[in-house]
Amino acid sequence: MPFSPDTRIDLNRYWQTIEVSAGIGEGRPGGLSRLTLSDADREIREQFKSWCEAAGLTVEIDQCGSMFGRREGQDNSLPPILIGSHLDTQINGGRFDGIAGVLAGLEVVRVLNDNNHVTKRPIEIVNWTNEEGARFSPPMVASGCFVGKYSVEWVHDLISDDGARFGDELERIGYSGSRACQENSVDAYFELHIEQGPILDAEGRDVGIVTGGYPVRGMRASFAGKTAHTGPTPMDLRHNALVAGARWLTAVDNIGWDYAVHDGKATAARLTAWPNKPGILSDSAEAICDVRHPDPITTRVMAEKMRRAVYESAAIAGCTANIEDEWEWGGDVFDAELIESVRNHAIRLGVNWRDIKSQAGHDAYFMATHCPTTMIFTPCKNGITHNNEEYCEAENFDAALNILLHAVVERADRE
Amino acid sequence: MPFSPDTRIDLNRYWQTIEVSAGIGEGRPGGLSRLTLSDADREIREQFKSWCEAAGLTVEIDQCGSMFGRREGQDNSLPPILIGSHLDTQINGGRFDGIAGVLAGLEVVRVLNDNNHVTKRPIEIVNWTNEEGARFSPPMVASGCFVGKYSVEWVHDLISDDGARFGDELERIGYSGSRACQENSVDAYFELHIEQGPILDAEGRDVGIVTGGYPVRGMRASFAGKTAHTGPTPMDLRHNALVAGARWLTAVDNIGWDYAVHDGKATAARLTAWPNKPGILSDSAEAICDVRHPDPITTRVMAEKMRRAVYESAAIAGCTANIEDEWEWGGDVFDAELIESVRNHAIRLGVNWRDIKSQAGHDAYFMATHCPTTMIFTPCKNGITHNNEEYCEAENFDAALNILLHAVVERADRE
Repeated sequence: MPFSPDTRIDLNRYWQTIEVSAGIGEGRPGGLSRLTLSDADREIREQFKSWCEAAGLTVEIDQCGSMFGRREGQDNSLPPILIGSHLDTQINGGRFDGIAGVLAGLEVVRVLNDNNHVTKRPIEIVNWTNEEGARFSPPMVASGCFVGKYSVEWVHDLISDDGARFGDELERIGYSGSRACQENSVDAYFELHIEQGPILDAEGRDVGIVTGGYPVRGMRASFAGKTAHTGPTPMDLRHNALVAGARWLTAVDNIGWDYAVHDGKATAARLTAWPNKPGILSDSAEAICDVRHPDPITTRVMAEKMRRAVYESAAIAGCTANIEDEWEWGGDVFDAELIESVRNHAIRLGVNWRDIKSQAGHDAYFMATHCPTTMIFTPCKNGITHNNEEYCEAENFDAALNILLHAVVERADRE
Repeated sequence: MPFSPDTRIDLNRYWQTIEVSAGIGEGRPGGLSRLTLSDADREIREQFKSWCEAAGLTVEIDQCGSMFGRREGQDNSLPPILIGSHLDTQINGGRFDGIAGVLAGLEVVRVLNDNNHVTKRPIEIVNWTNEEGARFSPPMVASGCFVGKYSVEWVHDLISDDGARFGDELERIGYSGSRACQENSVDAYFELHIEQGPILDAEGRDVGIVTGGYPVRGMRASFAGKTAHTGPTPMDLRHNALVAGARWLTAVDNIGWDYAVHDGKATAARLTAWPNKPGILSDSAEAICDVRHPDPITTRVMAEKMRRAVYESAAIAGCTANIEDEWEWGGDVFDAELIESVRNHAIRLGVNWRDIKSQAGHDAYFMATHCPTTMIFTPCKNGITHNNEEYCEAENFDAALNILLHAVVERADRE
């Protein structure tokens, strides 16, 4: 029996799951501090697993701890449709972020159950481990491993700032699974996410059809200096690695301002130094920065300036520098057919939509290298995110959830 | 019996104590990492105590853990002469720094013993706790407490970066003493120290007669921002406290360069931020900087620019700022009579001396507010210090040790 185009998700039921999640790993008032592989992460995983099982899903855990709740289809030899995002948060995170996307997948499955609709292809809801990278850097390692960008061993050997090993923490919370991370065939990947920017909210839109992402380029640079007394050492004999790092962050922030008028951004995200104490010049420093701009050529120009600033900052501080790591993501990598399907359902449902580009990193970027992928954005108040003041109302999700439901069923049931 | 002006210290014996000390709390090759109130600090304290006792001194520990090795005089109702410095080091420290000064006091006493000379006034050798401030900030707290600048309770409640409490660490290593820190009468304070700058070495001088110090002004500033996503947040909606801090450090370093031609210096010493992670803008940051210049008016101008830069840096980053603490030291605070005595002995002994100003902080600055005080500097290779490559030879100390000996005896024996 064909799936009725009038079927709608149950917004109250969805919102209740959001509220249960908001009680696990509470942070500052209204927010969450649910770092990956923490006790709070274990708790939300247990909750998610029990929701999945109650909805008749079979839950599998892969070698990176990512959770897959599978609903069988009519032909289980076909690759599944994946719907998901992540349940971890930043240390001062909000209660929606990736959570809204994972629980959207759950709600889709519950509606299919309510309607006794078995899709042709199986559907899996995924909770990716460590999307945020707030405890183990870099972010999005589990989806990166899924698509073959990182090896399982490399992920397991990541060390957090508090000295914990990724693989050991997986074991500790009981989520070191056996499902192979790699060589999984996927038919399509859908990710619903709050916008994390101010555009939809400012324009009063119900939903954003994500056509791609701002090209982003980032790098991690190290600076090597030499300890010395902060007092008598003449300026021209100083090799203060902390100054090299601070100058790089300042230069990168300036690059952001230079391109801000056309929505360019530059981020000075992190700076550590050693010994970083009064009385002594620092021996070493490390910093992470990135740039993004809607135009890929401009992003490349900004990145080139950021790169040059690494060495200029080091030179002024009498230090040497090295770029330890570089990355890029974004661009128009999402699938034209999926985007078209999502847009058509938005039109059919009569919601206020617009095309939009993502400016944040998402597991969807890695997935786009693996299978047809798209994202759907929902508005969040003033675009505030990665902050306990992140705020949405249930109604903010209604349009996106219904679009997701019908786009998923269309994809899963196609010939 | 008068003390013979031809009496000389035993340089070999002195050097042997330096070498024993250099084996306790070893750091990078050739250097020491003997943080205050660590196990290594306990070990050097035990060694110093046993040396003192072998030299017939009575060792007392005060409430801040400072050690006083007392040699009685002919009239013990008179206030003692204090000779000393500190045995703790920076995390990447050298083997001379304050150590040379404490062990110089020990050598003076040993020579007096060899010659059966009992001075009119008693002599005490002091090892001040936590001169460096490398583990517990600020530096020089024990001498600061001795002169009434800080209370004992305030010192005991200091917390290190590793979360330890000063008072608890004193107890742990067995150096929480009962001698009152405050209201101790002192006749005079002598401190021998390596220069920690390149001047004496470059000019081939045997000794520096310290007439005072570069005026120094420092401050600790805090910056308050707001966490947000590093990606979509437009530049003008960002409140990244890490950027505020980095901009302040950069501005302060620029102030240093502006005044470098007349030997001005500015130091960006420390920057911490929270969460300081990729993916999220930082909520808060704290930084420590200072400026110094031979001319006190210029130091004040530099400090005023440093202060203005706190608020300018915060404003550019959309943050607020607060100056949490300010300090100053230096100036011509040493005692004219003691300086004259030291200089006369240098002339009489025929060494190559010059007047010099200290550019570093020393316990002597606090002591100068309490009693007549002076310092004697010895050369160190290329002025390298607070680094494991700090280097001196035994001969570098010969002139200063003999000057110290005779200046101390002259002071202790005067009518």
